[in-house]
Amino acid sequence: MNSFLRDGKGMLLAYDQGFEHGPSADFNDQNIDPAYIMDIAQKGDFTGVVFHKGIAEKYYNGKVPLIVKLNGKTSLPKGEPVSTIVCSVEEAISLGAKGVGYTIYLGSANESVMLEEFGQVEEEAHEEGLPAIAWIYPRGEAVKNDTAPEIVAYAARAGLEMGADAVKIKYTGATDSFRWAVKAAGLSKVFMSGGPKAPTDETFLAQVKGAMDAGATGLAVGRNVWQHAEPLKMTASLRDIIFRGSNLENKSQG
Amino acid sequence: MNSFLRDGKGMLLAYDQGFEHGPSADFNDQNIDPAYIMDIAQKGDFTGVVFHKGIAEKYYNGKVPLIVKLNGKTSLPKGEPVSTIVCSVEEAISLGAKGVGYTIYLGSANESVMLEEFGQVEEEAHEEGLPAIAWIYPRGEAVKNDTAPEIVAYAARAGLEMGADAVKIKYTGATDSFRWAVKAAGLSKVFMSGGPKAPTDETFLAQVKGAMDAGATGLAVGRNVWQHAEPLKMTASLRDIIFRGSNLENKSQG
Amino acid sequence: MNSFLRDGKGMLLAYDQGFEHGPSADFNDQNIDPAYIMDIAQKGDFTGVVFHKGIAEKYYNGKVPLIVKLNGKTSLPKGEPVSTIVCSVEEAISLGAKGVGYTIYLGSANESVMLEEFGQVEEEAHEEGLPAIAWIYPRGEAVKNDTAPEIVAYAARAGLEMGADAVKIKYTGATDSFRWAVKAAGLSKVFMSGGPKAPTDETFLAQVKGAMDAGATGLAVGRNVWQHAEPLKMTASLRDIIFRGSNLENKSQG
Amino acid sequence: MNSFLRDGKGMLLAYDQGFEHGPSADFNDQNIDPAYIMDIAQKGDFTGVVFHKGIAEKYYNGKVPLIVKLNGKTSLPKGEPVSTIVCSVEEAISLGAKGVGYTIYLGSANESVMLEEFGQVEEEAHEEGLPAIAWIYPRGEAVKNDTAPEIVAYAARAGLEMGADAVKIKYTGATDSFRWAVKAAGLSKVFMSGGPKAPTDETFLAQVKGAMDAGATGLAVGRNVWQHAEPLKMTASLRDIIFRGSNLENKSQG
Amino acid sequence: MNSFLRDGKGMLLAYDQGFEHGPSADFNDQNIDPAYIMDIAQKGDFTGVVFHKGIAEKYYNGKVPLIVKLNGKTSLPKGEPVSTIVCSVEEAISLGAKGVGYTIYLGSANESVMLEEFGQVEEEAHEEGLPAIAWIYPRGEAVKNDTAPEIVAYAARAGLEMGADAVKIKYTGATDSFRWAVKAAGLSKVFMSGGPKAPTDETFLAQVKGAMDAGATGLAVGRNVWQHAEPLKMTASLRDIIFRGSNLENKSQG
Repeated sequence: MNSFLRDGKGMLLAYDQGFEHGPSADFNDQNIDPAYIMDIAQKGDFTGVVFHKGIAEKYYNGKVPLIVKLNGKTSLPKGEPVSTIVCSVEEAISLGAKGVGYTIYLGSANESVMLEEFGQVEEEAHEEGLPAIAWIYPRGEAVKNDTAPEIVAYAARAGLEMGADAVKIKYTGATDSFRWAVKAAGLSKVFMSGGPKAPTDETFLAQVKGAMDAGATGLAVGRNVWQHAEPLKMTASLRDIIFRGSNLENKSQG
Repeated sequence: MNSFLRDGKGMLLAYDQGFEHGPSADFNDQNIDPAYIMDIAQKGDFTGVVFHKGIAEKYYNGKVPLIVKLNGKTSLPKGEPVSTIVCSVEEAISLGAKGVGYTIYLGSANESVMLEEFGQVEEEAHEEGLPAIAWIYPRGEAVKNDTAPEIVAYAARAGLEMGADAVKIKYTGATDSFRWAVKAAGLSKVFMSGGPKAPTDETFLAQVKGAMDAGATGLAVGRNVWQHAEPLKMTASLRDIIFRGSNLENKSQG
Repeated sequence: MNSFLRDGKGMLLAYDQGFEHGPSADFNDQNIDPAYIMDIAQKGDFTGVVFHKGIAEKYYNGKVPLIVKLNGKTSLPKGEPVSTIVCSVEEAISLGAKGVGYTIYLGSANESVMLEEFGQVEEEAHEEGLPAIAWIYPRGEAVKNDTAPEIVAYAARAGLEMGADAVKIKYTGATDSFRWAVKAAGLSKVFMSGGPKAPTDETFLAQVKGAMDAGATGLAVGRNVWQHAEPLKMTASLRDIIFRGSNLENKSQG
Repeated sequence: MNSFLRDGKGMLLAYDQGFEHGPSADFNDQNIDPAYIMDIAQKGDFTGVVFHKGIAEKYYNGKVPLIVKLNGKTSLPKGEPVSTIVCSVEEAISLGAKGVGYTIYLGSANESVMLEEFGQVEEEAHEEGLPAIAWIYPRGEAVKNDTAPEIVAYAARAGLEMGADAVKIKYTGATDSFRWAVKAAGLSKVFMSGGPKAPTDETFLAQVKGAMDAGATGLAVGRNVWQHAEPLKMTASLRDIIFRGSNLENKSQG
Repeated sequence: MNSFLRDGKGMLLAYDQGFEHGPSADFNDQNIDPAYIMDIAQKGDFTGVVFHKGIAEKYYNGKVPLIVKLNGKTSLPKGEPVSTIVCSVEEAISLGAKGVGYTIYLGSANESVMLEEFGQVEEEAHEEGLPAIAWIYPRGEAVKNDTAPEIVAYAARAGLEMGADAVKIKYTGATDSFRWAVKAAGLSKVFMSGGPKAPTDETFLAQVKGAMDAGATGLAVGRNVWQHAEPLKMTASLRDIIFRGSNLENKSQG
């Protein structure tokens, strides 16, 4: 996982929303262009950028370490979620990936499909010397609240048990409860999932600070950066929190 | 994708309707004969022709670049649509294909089956140096209106993210909304899907002009050409719009 | 397909009913014995005989070209029909097959399973230099009338599009409507499916004549021959119609 | 199949009930021990013994030809039966098998799963020079009476058509109706399935005599031998009927 | 199985609950850390430790023989249980495993999925010289009481028949009924499953004593050790019972 860390911390720019949510849900005329995101990743000094294979093939410029998401689905189908492999580890590597990502909808009636595939992805990635990063999102009929502390901790732990080098999980809303999730992840690195654009910068930065204080390794962020009017300014604030452990109050004063 | 472009634009003649819709739905005594279509493709200076493997094997004459459709279904079964591989990339190549096509019913409860297969098709085609073209049709219980701008844009984007070199999508009905879909497709080429025979030539030509004005690379057309009383005359009109950017009004006056 | 044709016409003796319908539905003490059928095939000068692999292995004598049916099901299960591979192309060849057959229940909710398998069968058979023959029977909830002209034509066309060298389809009941099916099949050869024993010889012979007049290549017949009290006499009548284009009226007079 | 025949007849000792029915359903303190059964097989001069792979691996002593059952299920799940491969042909051979067995629940909604697997088993076994024996049990919603003559004959015939060297089927209850099943099986050998312990020895021996008189090759018996107070005495009676064609009346007098 | 036995007896420390039940269900700040469990395994002289691959990769120190659990699921999904492969035999070996474990939910509507996978696991493990250990838990709609003697015996027997070198089964509650399960397992070793933390030490130790008296080979224990305030003291008591056959009364007095 060291390829994606700086001083043991990481800040990943994620851009799979065009596939997972659809362009009209999340994009404007500017951020619909993957080149815009590649540019932010580079200028914002991100330690990694996350693309699906099609974006990687046509837009990746090699300036920031690449994670290719190996599975995907659209937001259109109803019912229990399932997301299956659309890109092999081998193809990801051929596109320049230094790591691979895979989403597991824990608790879905189709959970076993994704656990089995991730098991294979992890084995193949490790054989190739690449980290396997698990996006673990509890979802489906059986999951009432996907940010409940015990659910987030379960997601973190499932990642550790499955051999994920890092897990991307949602924030629980409080440092203390997120600390339990970080403990559950053990030696797997924890990346907080940025989620939808927060109402104010302060709200989001406080969440990131909370996660870092709880022991997270870093952040995987998308909309809160590239939907921001000043993405590089937001990124600078994030860097301060993640890599320099800045106190949020200082931040908002500074 | 250059094999199927002339001056960066493309005009594909599609003829998979005998499988997808049935011969009695779309054919008459003339156009039921694949040789008739092969002839139009050649005389009409199409930049590509699209056949299923059986037609390709028995009727393809090598005069126009060939795209073989790799999956297919009939229109008979009810329920959530699924279309699976009936021809391998390898077999398509042995039939003379310079590109492969695959249909994804986005939003179907079986979406994951097709996303996974297309992912493999794309990888194998690219290894062989062939473009992979995605016919992306949102369909199924979850899709209320398959020409709604945000749905068409989603189709376009899913193609880009999946690594399609080109996407074939339906027209949204207006240049402005189709421009958003073209933007969503990014560096994937956009081909407007011809659809059923339009009530008048003008209606159809206006759609094509609208798509080209929105930035489309071209058109994949079937019924509006080979159901036409004068297919080569219609083709000439299409060529003017696609390759010479003719103004439609001039066209209908000329 | 030439292995199974004489002067461009073909007459196949089919004997898969023990598996597909059960012995008690179709057999008597005589025709339950596959050796009896092998004998008729040889003495009746059939251009091909159709067996499942078990019959081929134990009873085939090499005197008539062999088609091995690669998939099968019993008539017992209810619900949407599905018939999957029970014999590989390779095994069929090892049993002496010069062609392979595969049944597709078009319109079944399981249609995609059979389309995909037939696609593989066709590819493998053609690599080995064998024709692939599709038994195409529209069936399932979505199919109201499996001899409706547009349904039979759809079956024929699906065979052509899938790369079948020949299709076995039901008779529509009239020459004119069957001619449309033959046109839909294009360069795929059309074999009329014999079906259950007709009430009189004349009825059956009239159907065969109708199919041949419509352009069929031949007939795949079972029960109307081997349930017949005088199978070789019936076969002689069929030969006259199929290979010599005899007029039926002459026949019944003669 | 000759490995399991003596003078063209066979007597197999089956012992898969611990898996298929559970130990508490069929076993006592003595016959729960596979060594007890191995001993009966040897002392009783059986022409074959049938074990699942685990029993074969730990208890088979090489003194009687071995058939390994390749698929299995417990009696616990409700719904349409399905039994899938738990032992490969290759593994069976490594355990000393001279033949392989596979159960097909004909008529089950899952029938196609088992037909396809048996098709592969048969091919692989024959490549290795081993006979493939089909346990064919019509079962599921669609099967009202699994010993009805036409159903038993269907089972027999399906085995022949699928390439089984021998079929194990239930007794129909009468010689005449079982004779039809034997005819349906053609050159596939018919083994009567012993079934649950009969109320009296005479009842069971009469069934076996009936089956042999109908042309069966032999018997696959389990509970009627190893649940018997004197298994070797019962076995001696069976041997007389199967190999010496003893008249049952002589038997019960003698 | 000898790698995991001492004087023919075994005591395994199981730690897959973080995956199977979730960290919040079973862990506290101490035992959430796999290093704590690895330490207990070593200091407590366990004959084996059971981890999922992720824990094995990051925490296994080589001091106690390792069993890697090859399949897994979370407790979140409702409906008939299914647990599929997440780690190959090959990967387990690369992590240092000397044995592999696999859970079968006997009686589940998905039973066949797990029986088939375990069949493959057993074959591959034995080829590599490793024992295959089956966790057999009857579960699902069809199973009313998973500790009923006949159900536990069925679990044991299924393991033997499937080729398991050892089975892990629940205690029936009494020595006599558990003895029947041990008999059913035959030459497969029986490990009692520890289950949830017992109300008192005496309760649990009495169960273990009961199982050992019934002929069990040993115990696979988790929560009753690592949720214990003094895990090494509890372990010492278990060792006395398992390896020295201590009488429980002596134990509680001593």
